[in-house]
Amino acid sequence: MEQNLRIPGPTPIPPEVLHALSRPMINHRGPEFAAILERVETQLQHFFQTTHPILFFPSAGSGAMEAAIVNCFSPGDHVLAVTIGVFGNRFAKIAETFGLRVTRLETPWGHAADLDQLTVALADQRDLRGVLLTHNETSTGVTNDIAALARIIRQRQPDALILVDAVSSLGCVDLQMDAWDLDVVFTGSQKGWMVPPGLAMVAVSPRAWAAADRATLPRFYWDFRMAKKSLDKGQTPYTPPVNIFFGLDVSLEMMRTEGRDAIFARHQRVADLTRTRARALGLALFADPAYASNTVTAIIVPDGIDGKALTKALREQERVVIAGGQERLEGKLLRIGHLGYVHDTDISACMDALERQLAALGYRAQEPAYEQ
Amino acid sequence: MEQNLRIPGPTPIPPEVLHALSRPMINHRGPEFAAILERVETQLQHFFQTTHPILFFPSAGSGAMEAAIVNCFSPGDHVLAVTIGVFGNRFAKIAETFGLRVTRLETPWGHAADLDQLTVALADQRDLRGVLLTHNETSTGVTNDIAALARIIRQRQPDALILVDAVSSLGCVDLQMDAWDLDVVFTGSQKGWMVPPGLAMVAVSPRAWAAADRATLPRFYWDFRMAKKSLDKGQTPYTPPVNIFFGLDVSLEMMRTEGRDAIFARHQRVADLTRTRARALGLALFADPAYASNTVTAIIVPDGIDGKALTKALREQERVVIAGGQERLEGKLLRIGHLGYVHDTDISACMDALERQLAALGYRAQEPAYEQ
Repeated sequence: MEQNLRIPGPTPIPPEVLHALSRPMINHRGPEFAAILERVETQLQHFFQTTHPILFFPSAGSGAMEAAIVNCFSPGDHVLAVTIGVFGNRFAKIAETFGLRVTRLETPWGHAADLDQLTVALADQRDLRGVLLTHNETSTGVTNDIAALARIIRQRQPDALILVDAVSSLGCVDLQMDAWDLDVVFTGSQKGWMVPPGLAMVAVSPRAWAAADRATLPRFYWDFRMAKKSLDKGQTPYTPPVNIFFGLDVSLEMMRTEGRDAIFARHQRVADLTRTRARALGLALFADPAYASNTVTAIIVPDGIDGKALTKALREQERVVIAGGQERLEGKLLRIGHLGYVHDTDISACMDALERQLAALGYRAQEPAYEQ
Repeated sequence: MEQNLRIPGPTPIPPEVLHALSRPMINHRGPEFAAILERVETQLQHFFQTTHPILFFPSAGSGAMEAAIVNCFSPGDHVLAVTIGVFGNRFAKIAETFGLRVTRLETPWGHAADLDQLTVALADQRDLRGVLLTHNETSTGVTNDIAALARIIRQRQPDALILVDAVSSLGCVDLQMDAWDLDVVFTGSQKGWMVPPGLAMVAVSPRAWAAADRATLPRFYWDFRMAKKSLDKGQTPYTPPVNIFFGLDVSLEMMRTEGRDAIFARHQRVADLTRTRARALGLALFADPAYASNTVTAIIVPDGIDGKALTKALREQERVVIAGGQERLEGKLLRIGHLGYVHDTDISACMDALERQLAALGYRAQEPAYEQ
């Protein structure tokens, strides 16, 4: 029986895409690769909802965070990091590591960034060069309202760069880079795109290009300018992960065929199903329901249940693989991924297995739980 | 007819490995991936000829260069960059980009680093913190004698770190990290390892670990300490390129079965065959014969022949893909890769095609050419 991989990335890969991954290798400097690169960029622009160039880095998503920081800023630059969990904190930490002056706006985990708090935080800032946002916080299962956050930022700090970690949201949830006036938006291949990990994709606005020209942080591998110069020749500065491009060429075509809105609706539907089934088991959801993510659901481990024993039992008895909590949420959360190649039956099977293994561990559902 | 991919990386992939690339995705934080990671590291140590840990970065080879620099040094540190071509220059440029004081020891392209010149260069240096070396210079088809270079460095500058770019040599040509007392040695998945591009592998000596603890250059994505901390738990700090690991798990087992010395002998044989066939066509080889690479052969484009037209004809008429020259050698060289999954018949077919297409372009062999 094949594994039901229900972590928030890497995600399952459709058979057509798996097949493409094993195409014979080609020259990354030849016309065949240049054609793939052009097709992939064009298709991605449709999902980023942008006309700006999209740069490619052989990298995990965290590399794209570093790329965004070192291209846009200079040491001592002041940025506001709006953080609602582990990945927001990582983005802030990278900015600190590279010598930026970072003001953090933190929200209790499980909640989205608060619009009023952001308004206040922006009013107090001088010389603010950028704001770091997380679209979907994978550690807590919360999706920020980027449109509203960006509108407030543009009103209060019209010149600040808006950098958006969209690693676990893009391609699954609506994000309109150009309409919302975002400056750097990045994602990772192993999330909504239905291909293996190893490729980061970064879209860059004209405002961010201008910043990259002024910025003094040293950069080589992540240099946007070198990536753009190569892109204009149908290449990448360094050897790209060719077989991921083979996969993307197929998966993006599948996504275009399904349609952007239909994909968003499917993610809404599988997320609703996950939440409904969890509540029916009497389980409490971690995320504020108003901002619950359509790509990952965080469930609070019930009292008296050992979260690690539960995930192990699911893996070994059911071939269902879910994630636990990260950092201070370790052992306290179950996280179920439902992004990319996912359908209702995958979720039903996962929740059936969860119900069985909870029962095996002695769990008895209480009345529907209070949600934080 | 399948393409005969004869560039110096990415290299062809054996069918067994192609098959492994399309295995269904797994959890990168689970026990199955931890077991693969451990097997792959152990197998790689055999080929690096080291007992030191090997770190993994989702990255091209150039990322490993940047990782080596930012982990080992602080701004203003003095390093000697021994450069014999494009990739040696890239290593030096990265060091400069990050604020090191770089002394360059350059050799005319086509030649290996000169031992006497190195001896002189080292005697003049004070406070030298490191020496940057290229094992195999892919742009010129020259392999440095790292054992001899390292011996001279250790005698003159016992505390200097020796950093070796072994991207296009490791696993194909003898390199003894521990016996030669090297400090940082790195390679890329798309070269001798018979898997797709996207993974950099970096071995780190105790001397380099001590340097990494002292170094003040900011680092996050490339941080050796974070990579080591994760490795000790059977993980990587960021999502690894899982399907490249699937491939490596198979290709390294194939390599162990063939045997390290047998692999080196095969690379010697296919390189000799390439050079012999080229000379028989009256073509001049670019590399000093004493240091000619066993992984890539650079041939001088004969007078009166358009190098770009020739590579195009090979690609379109013969399905043979070779590389041209880089930077100042653009249009002046043909480069034939013979590393990784390569056998005599691949080379014979390539050279037969080269002979036909040269003739079609009007080339007539002269008496065996003078070799630079």
